Amino acid sequence: MRGLLIGRYQPFHRGHLGTVRAIRASAPDAELVIAIGSAEESYTFENPFTASERFEMVVRAVRAAGLDGIVPVPVPDIRRHALWVRYLEGLLPPFEVVHTNNPLTRLLFEKAGYRVESPPLIDRARLEGRKIRTLLATGGAWSARVPPVVAAYLKEVDAPGRLALLRRPSATGPRPRP
Amino acid sequence: MRGLLIGRYQPFHRGHLGTVRAIRASAPDAELVIAIGSAEESYTFENPFTASERFEMVVRAVRAAGLDGIVPVPVPDIRRHALWVRYLEGLLPPFEVVHTNNPLTRLLFEKAGYRVESPPLIDRARLEGRKIRTLLATGGAWSARVPPVVAAYLKEVDAPGRLALLRRPSATGPRPRP
Amino acid sequence: MRGLLIGRYQPFHRGHLGTVRAIRASAPDAELVIAIGSAEESYTFENPFTASERFEMVVRAVRAAGLDGIVPVPVPDIRRHALWVRYLEGLLPPFEVVHTNNPLTRLLFEKAGYRVESPPLIDRARLEGRKIRTLLATGGAWSARVPPVVAAYLKEVDAPGRLALLRRPSATGPRPRP
Amino acid sequence: MRGLLIGRYQPFHRGHLGTVRAIRASAPDAELVIAIGSAEESYTFENPFTASERFEMVVRAVRAAGLDGIVPVPVPDIRRHALWVRYLEGLLPPFEVVHTNNPLTRLLFEKAGYRVESPPLIDRARLEGRKIRTLLATGGAWSARVPPVVAAYLKEVDAPGRLALLRRPSATGPRPRP
Amino acid sequence: MRGLLIGRYQPFHRGHLGTVRAIRASAPDAELVIAIGSAEESYTFENPFTASERFEMVVRAVRAAGLDGIVPVPVPDIRRHALWVRYLEGLLPPFEVVHTNNPLTRLLFEKAGYRVESPPLIDRARLEGRKIRTLLATGGAWSARVPPVVAAYLKEVDAPGRLALLRRPSATGPRPRP
Amino acid sequence: MRGLLIGRYQPFHRGHLGTVRAIRASAPDAELVIAIGSAEESYTFENPFTASERFEMVVRAVRAAGLDGIVPVPVPDIRRHALWVRYLEGLLPPFEVVHTNNPLTRLLFEKAGYRVESPPLIDRARLEGRKIRTLLATGGAWSARVPPVVAAYLKEVDAPGRLALLRRPSATGPRPRP
Repeated sequence: MRGLLIGRYQPFHRGHLGTVRAIRASAPDAELVIAIGSAEESYTFENPFTASERFEMVVRAVRAAGLDGIVPVPVPDIRRHALWVRYLEGLLPPFEVVHTNNPLTRLLFEKAGYRVESPPLIDRARLEGRKIRTLLATGGAWSARVPPVVAAYLKEVDAPGRLALLRRPSATGPRPRP
Repeated sequence: MRGLLIGRYQPFHRGHLGTVRAIRASAPDAELVIAIGSAEESYTFENPFTASERFEMVVRAVRAAGLDGIVPVPVPDIRRHALWVRYLEGLLPPFEVVHTNNPLTRLLFEKAGYRVESPPLIDRARLEGRKIRTLLATGGAWSARVPPVVAAYLKEVDAPGRLALLRRPSATGPRPRP
Repeated sequence: MRGLLIGRYQPFHRGHLGTVRAIRASAPDAELVIAIGSAEESYTFENPFTASERFEMVVRAVRAAGLDGIVPVPVPDIRRHALWVRYLEGLLPPFEVVHTNNPLTRLLFEKAGYRVESPPLIDRARLEGRKIRTLLATGGAWSARVPPVVAAYLKEVDAPGRLALLRRPSATGPRPRP
Repeated sequence: MRGLLIGRYQPFHRGHLGTVRAIRASAPDAELVIAIGSAEESYTFENPFTASERFEMVVRAVRAAGLDGIVPVPVPDIRRHALWVRYLEGLLPPFEVVHTNNPLTRLLFEKAGYRVESPPLIDRARLEGRKIRTLLATGGAWSARVPPVVAAYLKEVDAPGRLALLRRPSATGPRPRP
Repeated sequence: MRGLLIGRYQPFHRGHLGTVRAIRASAPDAELVIAIGSAEESYTFENPFTASERFEMVVRAVRAAGLDGIVPVPVPDIRRHALWVRYLEGLLPPFEVVHTNNPLTRLLFEKAGYRVESPPLIDRARLEGRKIRTLLATGGAWSARVPPVVAAYLKEVDAPGRLALLRRPSATGPRPRP
Repeated sequence: MRGLLIGRYQPFHRGHLGTVRAIRASAPDAELVIAIGSAEESYTFENPFTASERFEMVVRAVRAAGLDGIVPVPVPDIRRHALWVRYLEGLLPPFEVVHTNNPLTRLLFEKAGYRVESPPLIDRARLEGRKIRTLLATGGAWSARVPPVVAAYLKEVDAPGRLALLRRPSATGPRPRP
């Protein structure tokens, strides 16, 4: 028996960790697949961290929290909504329950016959990826919003410098697009 | 002899039907290829319906209107403007005339040597895809703006519910991208 | 109610036409979608004709045969077998029955819950695409193996010359790959 | 500290398991990332099983063998050899050692500065994916060549039937390509 | 010894030419590769000119300016930032120095071990692609902002007409997307 | 006025150089664009060298031969034959004549209205890419078949070692696919 939680985890913050903890507590016998979406993206303001870096954040955070039964899997976007569920079914280890608060995700998985549950959202006003990225970019107080091991990791890869740069990538000179 | 009309038909509304009727009336001996563009898109606010659903709308609408000589063809985007005409030439049955009011479409087909004609636009102030999608999403009076059989079909697939959801896909919680 | 028949139709030969006629005769009230597969391919020995040319062959052949209720649709390959059925469902007008003698096609559609039927194969020893392409390439007696209107069309586009060339594309000199 | 082992695991056999066991025994403090390559492939003779099925085989086999510290990750092909190492670095959790007997894999990772080691190959004459797939397809004695839990799983998904079919996909009738 | 300058050159203006001249003057023994980015784009307001047209502008401008040692190379986007440097290394002739004022470009090349230099920016307030495109679209005074041979070329391909059209592509009627 | 010569140049050998010299001699006022095809390929037996390496071979060889007016351009495959000419027109600097001995290349460019000429083939029995790659892989006498500067470059990048390895990439152990 496995559950599925999908996100981009840019970065993996305390809201994510709280959700994971709640899901694991409510279903201790079910592994939880954490799909790391938009895995091909990195070095943009919306998706600053590579899938590799996000995988590492997830691993460190769940280990520090003493959570087991977590299976992180990077998932490149398919960008075709009608194929998304089928695509995930072919890529991820088999799962039976989907945990989401996103209405489109709910709609697509329910159409495909899945049981969909709404996990608790933890302090959403403060724990939201875009807000934390903005704090990282502007020298704000971001570190208490992510687990301590993630805060340490973000310093290790100079996330504040990267985000500051990505927020205004085109300040001067020609703007090539990778 | 065939003509070509290109659109996304999200949804196929009374303006589209009026244009098709006018083209067929002006050239009763020419079949009309209706290219259903952005065929790979669905379940977004800009492109809520699959190509399959849009194909069905076209078929039902032209049949109810007693129009014959219509050839609907779904066309995935190629996203390279300089290749677009050549791409359509390789995919669609041969055509000689292009019906469009879009200046870029006109430019690209004229460069390639095609005859381009401007079909009548029917009540554009009311009959515009984005407006109809907004009415669908917000409980507005959309149904008179599409042919009756399309209105019935849109209810059948719960288009109002889908559009309401797609207009605010990220209300709460993590926002995975398919 | 619609049926689905999938092929590449390189070229559309008398075996294809016989199969289409048999399906239409057995289910006169059901439209038949003819999916023209590998639509992005052309100018190779396996796939010498563009989807546009194949679409035209189908149209001319079914019209000459007095068959109605035929809906040809070009379909680019998705190249991911596990997504194929779902991809076709999103692209083609809705269908309920699949006609195929190919065991993989049968397996994938049956897994997805479709009714699958085996249409008659007409004189398969002679009416097989690769054999007809080889006859075209080598000056053999190909024309009786396709419907007369297709034979005329193949001469119109100089299919014998094209196939002769494609059979040995690399006779001399550097071999660029498109 | 992590090691990396890359394969397609079509299916995951006793040779793979022996290699994994040897790597884990030689470096008990290092996690081992098992990259499941060609993750987008399935339902062909070369790649009959989806990444999802192969992920499940790996999980069941290592659990039954009492091995821990294993991190399976599905990896779609990038098909550009010069980018492959960089692509894996962006997708997988960070790794420092690569275990491979494939000379091209060795060359590409050594060029990128990695330490590359040659794990033991277990009874390669018998334990080779293609041979086992052929045995599956032809009713041969395949089951002793995979771990017992994998043998059970392969029966569960009717691998013998699937392989028999994939070995001759085009026995009769038109051959559409997904 | 070669240097690399990356841009989109939509169009190639006097600021670009001044930068190229300064780089060549500071390193007369080093060839300069001019990577023409987003080479697959054309006929949009952001990227109105094909790579072919931009290649021609560069050639004419540097020849008229008496500059030698220039190697223009069109480069399609890879759209995966983490792979960009490696992708360019596989496509372009070998280079050792990168000239850029873009902070993301600097970051990615420095991470990969390159020497990165900041070329002078010439009159950036006036010589900026988007401003010149807007002047072209609106009948403004654009021609003194590009080298005279580029001005002549832009008239030759009716750049003012193209830009006017691309600035408002969707004025009327259905909006197909290529 | 420009001519176009398309090849893969795996490697750039004395036959290629002789052809280039003959084209330049016959049209001294026309630049010659050398399109380096399959630019995305490398590290396979068919395409062992990156576009970067092939670009460098061309540059060194034509410089050593005292040839000017050569414009090398790497070109990724588009893999859709019907779009190939149009794709090249959008990517390469404008050209008016195509030099080729390949019948498919001739057909596609003639259909698009180009003048196509057949350059001399130099000692094709000995100077053929595949033969030279085989000699490189097997320790044969390859070096006299390429220009001396190319021979030196091939030694510099250990082409013999690379080819030997690529000829038998799957000698032992699992065979991941990049």
